[in-house]
Amino acid sequence: MRRRAFFSCADSIASALMSFLLNAWYVAAFAHEVRADVPFSRTLLGRPVVLYRDAEQRAIALDDRCAHRFAPLSQGRIVDGVLECPYHGLRFSANGQCVHNPHGDGRVPAGAKVRAYPSLERYGAIWFWPGDPARADAALLPSFPFVDPAANVTHDGYLHTRAHYQLSADNLLDLSHFQFLHPDTLGSEAIARGDVQSGSLDDIVWVRRSAYDEALQPFVAQGFGIPPGTRVDRWMDVRWTPPGLLSIVVGVTAAGMPREAGLIAPSAHWLTPETERTTHYFFAFGLPKEMGDAARGLVRYAVEGLMKPFECEDLPMLEAQQKNLGDHDFWAMQPALLPIDAGAIRARRVMERLIAAEQGTAPAPVRTIAITPVAGTSQAVA
Amino acid sequence: MRRRAFFSCADSIASALMSFLLNAWYVAAFAHEVRADVPFSRTLLGRPVVLYRDAEQRAIALDDRCAHRFAPLSQGRIVDGVLECPYHGLRFSANGQCVHNPHGDGRVPAGAKVRAYPSLERYGAIWFWPGDPARADAALLPSFPFVDPAANVTHDGYLHTRAHYQLSADNLLDLSHFQFLHPDTLGSEAIARGDVQSGSLDDIVWVRRSAYDEALQPFVAQGFGIPPGTRVDRWMDVRWTPPGLLSIVVGVTAAGMPREAGLIAPSAHWLTPETERTTHYFFAFGLPKEMGDAARGLVRYAVEGLMKPFECEDLPMLEAQQKNLGDHDFWAMQPALLPIDAGAIRARRVMERLIAAEQGTAPAPVRTIAITPVAGTSQAVA
Amino acid sequence: MRRRAFFSCADSIASALMSFLLNAWYVAAFAHEVRADVPFSRTLLGRPVVLYRDAEQRAIALDDRCAHRFAPLSQGRIVDGVLECPYHGLRFSANGQCVHNPHGDGRVPAGAKVRAYPSLERYGAIWFWPGDPARADAALLPSFPFVDPAANVTHDGYLHTRAHYQLSADNLLDLSHFQFLHPDTLGSEAIARGDVQSGSLDDIVWVRRSAYDEALQPFVAQGFGIPPGTRVDRWMDVRWTPPGLLSIVVGVTAAGMPREAGLIAPSAHWLTPETERTTHYFFAFGLPKEMGDAARGLVRYAVEGLMKPFECEDLPMLEAQQKNLGDHDFWAMQPALLPIDAGAIRARRVMERLIAAEQGTAPAPVRTIAITPVAGTSQAVA
Repeated sequence: MRRRAFFSCADSIASALMSFLLNAWYVAAFAHEVRADVPFSRTLLGRPVVLYRDAEQRAIALDDRCAHRFAPLSQGRIVDGVLECPYHGLRFSANGQCVHNPHGDGRVPAGAKVRAYPSLERYGAIWFWPGDPARADAALLPSFPFVDPAANVTHDGYLHTRAHYQLSADNLLDLSHFQFLHPDTLGSEAIARGDVQSGSLDDIVWVRRSAYDEALQPFVAQGFGIPPGTRVDRWMDVRWTPPGLLSIVVGVTAAGMPREAGLIAPSAHWLTPETERTTHYFFAFGLPKEMGDAARGLVRYAVEGLMKPFECEDLPMLEAQQKNLGDHDFWAMQPALLPIDAGAIRARRVMERLIAAEQGTAPAPVRTIAITPVAGTSQAVA
Repeated sequence: MRRRAFFSCADSIASALMSFLLNAWYVAAFAHEVRADVPFSRTLLGRPVVLYRDAEQRAIALDDRCAHRFAPLSQGRIVDGVLECPYHGLRFSANGQCVHNPHGDGRVPAGAKVRAYPSLERYGAIWFWPGDPARADAALLPSFPFVDPAANVTHDGYLHTRAHYQLSADNLLDLSHFQFLHPDTLGSEAIARGDVQSGSLDDIVWVRRSAYDEALQPFVAQGFGIPPGTRVDRWMDVRWTPPGLLSIVVGVTAAGMPREAGLIAPSAHWLTPETERTTHYFFAFGLPKEMGDAARGLVRYAVEGLMKPFECEDLPMLEAQQKNLGDHDFWAMQPALLPIDAGAIRARRVMERLIAAEQGTAPAPVRTIAITPVAGTSQAVA
Repeated sequence: MRRRAFFSCADSIASALMSFLLNAWYVAAFAHEVRADVPFSRTLLGRPVVLYRDAEQRAIALDDRCAHRFAPLSQGRIVDGVLECPYHGLRFSANGQCVHNPHGDGRVPAGAKVRAYPSLERYGAIWFWPGDPARADAALLPSFPFVDPAANVTHDGYLHTRAHYQLSADNLLDLSHFQFLHPDTLGSEAIARGDVQSGSLDDIVWVRRSAYDEALQPFVAQGFGIPPGTRVDRWMDVRWTPPGLLSIVVGVTAAGMPREAGLIAPSAHWLTPETERTTHYFFAFGLPKEMGDAARGLVRYAVEGLMKPFECEDLPMLEAQQKNLGDHDFWAMQPALLPIDAGAIRARRVMERLIAAEQGTAPAPVRTIAITPVAGTSQAVA
């Protein structure tokens, strides 16, 4: 029965979007966006999805398209924990089944059903699984303990990006751009002078970047409580997991001192494709509750402060890249490959392999790349 | 000669729009929109059409695309009852023939001709026939006597709808949506409790809906001159004829009283596709001239009062449906079918049959539907 | 090496735009638009191109798409005469080669190269050659001596036109439209009464139009310093060269007097396709420096005065034509052909022949046209 739902009409409709990995957890919304009184609509992987909470406060994700005449259920009401269509009043329960027909004798046709997506709430977000419901397993969700609201104070931000989600992943996996795109907030000349390592473990990709003897920009220095002009060593550890779930831990210590003597700021960065060319970018900072009020101020400072470079510098760049990419395949554009790209390329290769496996096709042929290793850079990238 | 014109280049241009029924009368404009001093342009069935009145005040409909360099004739002047192109001054008469070339020796190439559409003026509207001119017969126009300006006072309204015209027809053929989409103006809980019948006679589809012991919303009650809180029986008789010409007669009588003791308000609703995804929606109310000034106030009250629910509730819904439908075929979306849909489905089937016959193709296969009859509902729908 | 660059990936990307003539000089910008301190971006023949001046003030034209991750180089800085990518700081020199990688050991991959276009500065404009660099020859540039800034005072204007560049060429090659489209500024009834000749020499097309005993509109009369109401003979000599480079010389003399007794105003009109449906329209007037301040005032008067009819009358017409043309081939629309079209048709035929030759395909079949000659009109047009 469930498999049948999986291969329903709604899937054939999404066939133009087959380049997405379907059997994966994606962030659909922050937890605070999804309510029990008013439904919420968002396009995810090209599909209109309605999100709401049922009578038990569980987050529900359904196709935002009534089974009867395709009206957006998100414009309807939540009545006794079920969703009422705004057009003719049909009601749908958490599994997508129509449970109420107000007209005539009230019988409900068996096929009056909208697609329901497995969903769960964790790390302050509502996650949904667009693929085969039978394979939706909470254990597959990667860990972001620092934004678990049970133990942490968190603050989150959202940006809508008019670019393919892999361009955003490229951006986050190669922070060398701080120096050029964000010279007044996040970067400095020390970054290009620093070193970078990357590698992978199964489907996880990591990039470790270090800058030495750096004079931080005021925005970063203030966030870490460092007096202006102090020379520091900074490291930025990025972990990527499919389909686009990243953690970034930035650490700072006095120049030449061991990392253990420094401070860290962990953040989560979750990319969910809206369409083939647009992306929902969710990010969040968290610090332990035991840090008290200071934590609350710091996570808010980080999110609010990052909004400006993200929105005014990264977004225009990503959109310009997408415009230049157009309908062309990334590899067909023959991008020059540099050592700084190692992590981003690994992540692209993982995604290509997973999507090809899911679709039963061969992955795109790998272009052999001879990357000259820089100090401390892992070498094999393909 | 006429057949040749029918299969001219302009038709091949419109070939992408072959899903329209061509041999039918469509409303091109209200009569008051078409003038003898200034031409008027409207896209109809995907074609730019210019409308104007010639020296005898007859409404003329031509392709709004000069035969010479495709300039929009609607931006030109009407000179002695013929249309002058704004770019190089060629003039075209009522049958589309170029009759004046101001340049050089003034000769007119034989092929300098734009397509002329058969047209007629009736019921306060200008009708045009986009198909074979030889088949254009005024007798094929269905009757809307209550908006015949000879005997009636009328008022009309127009809305541009960003949705396929069949979605608008669905809306008008199933007024059960009053209760959910227009709860503050047109609907009440009595509607779902009421009954509905539908049937067809040749290509005509009818739906009769009755609500009993209803407390009307103030907008409807005031229109019928009924004191607030009065319990009434209300009936809504809808007649649809191809390609999307509907009359709706709403009647009200004191609860339990015969219809003959009540009042009726007849209205016309004419749907003309602008494109595959947008629709011109013309509607008009008419009451007999012998009712005097009261009639004038009532038809105006009806049109102006309906503008708000039509524009603020129906239009957004139709556009949301269209967005959810996208490029997909209606049937491929596997809509759930309810007894309330019987009339709308009949009308879709008539259109599919007529278009298939006109194009010499087989109609889309009919999905067999087992609709559980509600009280008084006709059963066979396919 | 150069040929290899010519058939690079960037070309395959532009394959959808193969209907452009590639081996030709096009205006990319006016000279004053291209600077040594800030790069400038313009889409030319469907390609994003960045323009700037190097340390020697030479104008450089590169693909505006970094070889690394497709960032727009035009948003970067010019550093020591080379262009720095705004995203990761790669730098590219005048031949498109990456010459600086700020990261790690600084090695530059051999393939890190963007396409460079041959360019030159002449007649107050920057010209670029989108085809095979080996064939770019400055001697192929047609002559516009009256706007050579060495000997002339010039003034220029730019308009963005949402229409195919050939529709603009049609417009300039058939000035009979002055009478109808610009009746208050440029036209008069004398134009249709006048005569027109056209012909071609190799790939050059010329049209000579004369109007006799004309009362000029005040805008034109004032430009020539002619008292209001004076009867004049006016001639308009248009020369077109591929791909869309026109000179127009308008002359005026007292009615019945020889041309030698009159005055002329020469202007250049350069059409560069932005896309298949949009055009950059550059125009300029020039008069000899020896005319002194009067020349400066006159060229400015001409450009500023023409802006209104060009922008408010020609542009809307061209855009309306394009809208009516849609995706259809010009010839498939079976345009009626008049004697006034002779020059424009010749130019279209030249372009079709040149493009077919470049692409190794057969030109579109020529429709045989029997044009009745008007007085003084060349006859053979095909």
